[in-house]
Amino acid sequence: MRITRIRDAVAPIPSPMRNAVISFDKMTISVLAIETDVVRNGKPVIGLGFCSNGRYAQSGVIRERLAPRILEADPKTLTTADGDNFDPFAIWRAMMSNEKPGGHGERAFAAGGIDMAIWDIVAKIEGKPLWRLLSERFNGGKYDERVLVYSGGGYYYPGKEREGLQDEMRKARDLGYRLLKMKIGGASLADDLKRIEWVIEIAGGGANVAVDANGNLGLDAALAYARAMEPYGLSWFEEPVDPLDYRAHAVICDASDVPIATGENLFSVQDFRNLLRHGGMRPHRDWIQPDPSLCYGLTETLRILDDADRMGWSRRRCVPHGGHQLGLNMAAGLQLGGSESYPGVFQPYGGFADSIPIIEGYTTLHDSPGIGMELRSKMMDGLTKRLELPLSRV
Amino acid sequence: MRITRIRDAVAPIPSPMRNAVISFDKMTISVLAIETDVVRNGKPVIGLGFCSNGRYAQSGVIRERLAPRILEADPKTLTTADGDNFDPFAIWRAMMSNEKPGGHGERAFAAGGIDMAIWDIVAKIEGKPLWRLLSERFNGGKYDERVLVYSGGGYYYPGKEREGLQDEMRKARDLGYRLLKMKIGGASLADDLKRIEWVIEIAGGGANVAVDANGNLGLDAALAYARAMEPYGLSWFEEPVDPLDYRAHAVICDASDVPIATGENLFSVQDFRNLLRHGGMRPHRDWIQPDPSLCYGLTETLRILDDADRMGWSRRRCVPHGGHQLGLNMAAGLQLGGSESYPGVFQPYGGFADSIPIIEGYTTLHDSPGIGMELRSKMMDGLTKRLELPLSRV
Repeated sequence: MRITRIRDAVAPIPSPMRNAVISFDKMTISVLAIETDVVRNGKPVIGLGFCSNGRYAQSGVIRERLAPRILEADPKTLTTADGDNFDPFAIWRAMMSNEKPGGHGERAFAAGGIDMAIWDIVAKIEGKPLWRLLSERFNGGKYDERVLVYSGGGYYYPGKEREGLQDEMRKARDLGYRLLKMKIGGASLADDLKRIEWVIEIAGGGANVAVDANGNLGLDAALAYARAMEPYGLSWFEEPVDPLDYRAHAVICDASDVPIATGENLFSVQDFRNLLRHGGMRPHRDWIQPDPSLCYGLTETLRILDDADRMGWSRRRCVPHGGHQLGLNMAAGLQLGGSESYPGVFQPYGGFADSIPIIEGYTTLHDSPGIGMELRSKMMDGLTKRLELPLSRV
Repeated sequence: MRITRIRDAVAPIPSPMRNAVISFDKMTISVLAIETDVVRNGKPVIGLGFCSNGRYAQSGVIRERLAPRILEADPKTLTTADGDNFDPFAIWRAMMSNEKPGGHGERAFAAGGIDMAIWDIVAKIEGKPLWRLLSERFNGGKYDERVLVYSGGGYYYPGKEREGLQDEMRKARDLGYRLLKMKIGGASLADDLKRIEWVIEIAGGGANVAVDANGNLGLDAALAYARAMEPYGLSWFEEPVDPLDYRAHAVICDASDVPIATGENLFSVQDFRNLLRHGGMRPHRDWIQPDPSLCYGLTETLRILDDADRMGWSRRRCVPHGGHQLGLNMAAGLQLGGSESYPGVFQPYGGFADSIPIIEGYTTLHDSPGIGMELRSKMMDGLTKRLELPLSRV
């Protein structure tokens, strides 16, 4: 069996909002289709993947380095010993050959998109949904039948702050979400506290609200926010400061009992190890949020989870970033703490299967082979068009 | 005044050697020419730059994100207040707009190449060599008339280890180098110790030798190397372990007095701050080695030096990686500890001015405006060809 072709394309995902740091009006992602000569149900197995939002498309790294290394490798070195399936770990090593240590940026995003498509292939060849394959391989067969999902959003609405924010939150609740996340750090502390109270009104309590500063606060401001927010009993305070400022995280964790969440801007096992070693994060209180489509893929995220486990962190403290089905499959099959979701933005990429609703803050999983991207019709329209995929083959 | 065009091209720099981690036979770099409408000596000022070796070309990030942001910015926002010159800090902010925190990889290399060309422009507009401009702006007018340069190399020579290695080191000495660096970590400790002794023979003492493991050793092995190498009195032990494993650096520094050097695989002020906070590095003994052409440019390296200064690190403990004229200009104008050099490899990019020799381990600087890349004829042949630059204009 062999990988016969790796297609990639740039897909624009412009969104009108901005967070405390960047605007998303020129945001793009890379979408990928990896073709094989393995036939299932009369069609060649094709894996689908993408690098999720916030970090732009990565065609250069994919086309110039990672994809050629996979296509040029001896196909026998990319399969399991019995030759029954591809080996994602071997493929990962092949695409990362001749890469120096450190510098975990665009290369990690490109690898994340490829690795997503590879795991999609592996699950399709086994004829199982990815969450079930992950459960069997890495979780002793245990899995969650429903997964906590929360809504990422809660933007600023200049000129109609309260109305805009509360309307957005009501819509998320109407879609079934119960835990609602909102942006902070783009206004004064006093104004942000008012906004938090408006959202608590809609969410029905501080435990149903998380706040996200997108790494934009200095340490002094982050401490002031943490202390001022303590009475609300929020679910978490996400990215209070620069994601690589481990000492600042440690100071905040020392000064306040507000749960801290971070990880969407750390992209390697080394960076997560540093966060857990030096960041003062508390395994019984805080949250880690790797994005498997950005941090060198599910393959590297498994290493991150293993490493965190050795440092006393339950998988339940991991809630993947990105709002995509890869994170959802991992959450179910590996029994993580939940998965992010973005109702209404970063479309048509991201989001979960069309036919499966969110009920009281939880969602359920699909039964078809692979990640389940075929169950999301608008995303499939986008993928097949961007990648010029013959519709008959997917 | 305005930037009128940003050209970039991929330049192959294949080298037959490999270090302990990667082979360089498919290595590429991005080369850049940034054109302006400012005229000096009857020609429009053009800045030249590249991302140095080891990290591959970055056309995607340059073309899709960084260059368009500079070209689309209001030209008035990219100059100094008096409009006499471009402002490299303003240009840096423009190219980095709408970029999320963290993830310091390919984006840092692309920015490094662009930033090199921008500083070349700024110095050319002032009609000064870059080292003099840096001296005046950031070092109270002080500078070094000669700069310590050391030779990076010392490869493995399968089948003719002693002869190959000693020949290479003799050649470096004949070129004028006195401090000679060699690779370790690609053989057993016992074999590497023999190799170190062979090099010490040629170098005339351990203080003239540095060793480089390219981040490839585990902590146990790195400790064994450090202790075994102590009697030699080597200049430094470079990249003993993964560059992001700060705790391992701290353990090594605690266990051994061998000077440690690292930094070529850290690419942001945040990562260097973490190294100095958590890595146990000693300001009176160890060395930091940022590559300004890779770590978001001279602009970010100035921030790294300021940050290190606040933590008690003299600029003399900084020896830039990369073997290029940007590092050399910085070493002279900012009075750093020296600059790396690669006699014979990564050609024609890197290397110093043709006409200026290396004498007893030191080199001197050029007098012409800018970085001085025009004084290196083979590199200029490569740049003008790859970038399709009209020869009359450079």
